[in-house]
Amino acid sequence: MNPEKALADAGLELPDANRPVANYVMARRDGRHLLLSGHGAFVDGKPVHTGRLGADLTTDQGRQAAEAVMLNLLATVRAELGSLDAVESFLKLTVYVRSAPDYAEQHLVADGATDLLVRLFGDAGRPARTTVGVAALPLGFAVEVEALAFVS
Amino acid sequence: MNPEKALADAGLELPDANRPVANYVMARRDGRHLLLSGHGAFVDGKPVHTGRLGADLTTDQGRQAAEAVMLNLLATVRAELGSLDAVESFLKLTVYVRSAPDYAEQHLVADGATDLLVRLFGDAGRPARTTVGVAALPLGFAVEVEALAFVS
Amino acid sequence: MNPEKALADAGLELPDANRPVANYVMARRDGRHLLLSGHGAFVDGKPVHTGRLGADLTTDQGRQAAEAVMLNLLATVRAELGSLDAVESFLKLTVYVRSAPDYAEQHLVADGATDLLVRLFGDAGRPARTTVGVAALPLGFAVEVEALAFVS
Repeated sequence: MNPEKALADAGLELPDANRPVANYVMARRDGRHLLLSGHGAFVDGKPVHTGRLGADLTTDQGRQAAEAVMLNLLATVRAELGSLDAVESFLKLTVYVRSAPDYAEQHLVADGATDLLVRLFGDAGRPARTTVGVAALPLGFAVEVEALAFVS
Repeated sequence: MNPEKALADAGLELPDANRPVANYVMARRDGRHLLLSGHGAFVDGKPVHTGRLGADLTTDQGRQAAEAVMLNLLATVRAELGSLDAVESFLKLTVYVRSAPDYAEQHLVADGATDLLVRLFGDAGRPARTTVGVAALPLGFAVEVEALAFVS
Repeated sequence: MNPEKALADAGLELPDANRPVANYVMARRDGRHLLLSGHGAFVDGKPVHTGRLGADLTTDQGRQAAEAVMLNLLATVRAELGSLDAVESFLKLTVYVRSAPDYAEQHLVADGATDLLVRLFGDAGRPARTTVGVAALPLGFAVEVEALAFVS
């Protein structure tokens, strides 16, 4: 498993690591575990992929939002550990999808995040996962993702 | 504590273990911990107990939904560990209840899940718990539950 | 770090520890970790700080709600460990903010909880954090907080 090489081979680049938008840290190390805060999608420090699934955004747009969030989250991982290669596995993901009350495809939106993890980390990137539809998210984000990684 | 015997004594049967509805796994082992993904209620592979508390469903129907979800989650536990008897305790449950904006009895709905755990595992089945009301859930589920178990 | 002294110096007092409103426990010890259940704000056993951000409550009122919830959560910590001084750090907070669909300042509300932690515990109190806006909460609470602490 060589996620940095897989990232380059896929022609993907990580954005700059997010800064916290309030009083918390983006990640906490706990022994061999790295706890990642809830992340949104930023480009050049500005929120992107805002809106509500089932109202403003299609499932496919939601999936793209989830992938963008995961790239932001991986930027935090690299900033914390020096390299994505220091991750042994992703144990758990929680994916919050901003949803109209009748929207029911949050799990497909969340695949935008886990598909990317599996592409880069193989089976080690396929986590346990909880996906829910929430009324609203900070800064109007469409998708927010938190993660628990096992690291070397 | 003998949860498999307690289950049989109660005349309860576990359904077949859920398959993931998207790109994730139903559970991840992390040392002595088992991290269970967010589960919904399926019967014969079809979603059941759908709808919204405070609109389509009563609190009592919600409680039944939460129990059904927990039976599905326990099916995953047995599939992962071979037997429920390999669980030493349930440390944490997170219960998501699909809710109309003014519905405020999510904690009573969630008891459908924890009452079953306590019935089968005794005090070891009484977890720390977080219960919230969400706008929407995958496949229209009324209740979704994730769990953290300590295992032998 | 001397959070009990910092609390007294700030002229703050912890309320009585919450009792569970349903079938669960307020906290579970897991080795060096303390898992805190989702907490709301009670005064004299009655729910306070109820309502919805973006509808009934301002962001500043939400922040006060989050601080009140954190005082309740710290009361549980003291009840479990004997003293706040037994906490080495707060690793993770999840903050649920009851929100109207267009409300987008949940992260500022959540600072009511983390500002207090940092005031009492210094950098060790600045956790990884996930903050989301939910449709509804048990008993009509405006804010619910769960936490993971690393303890001595």
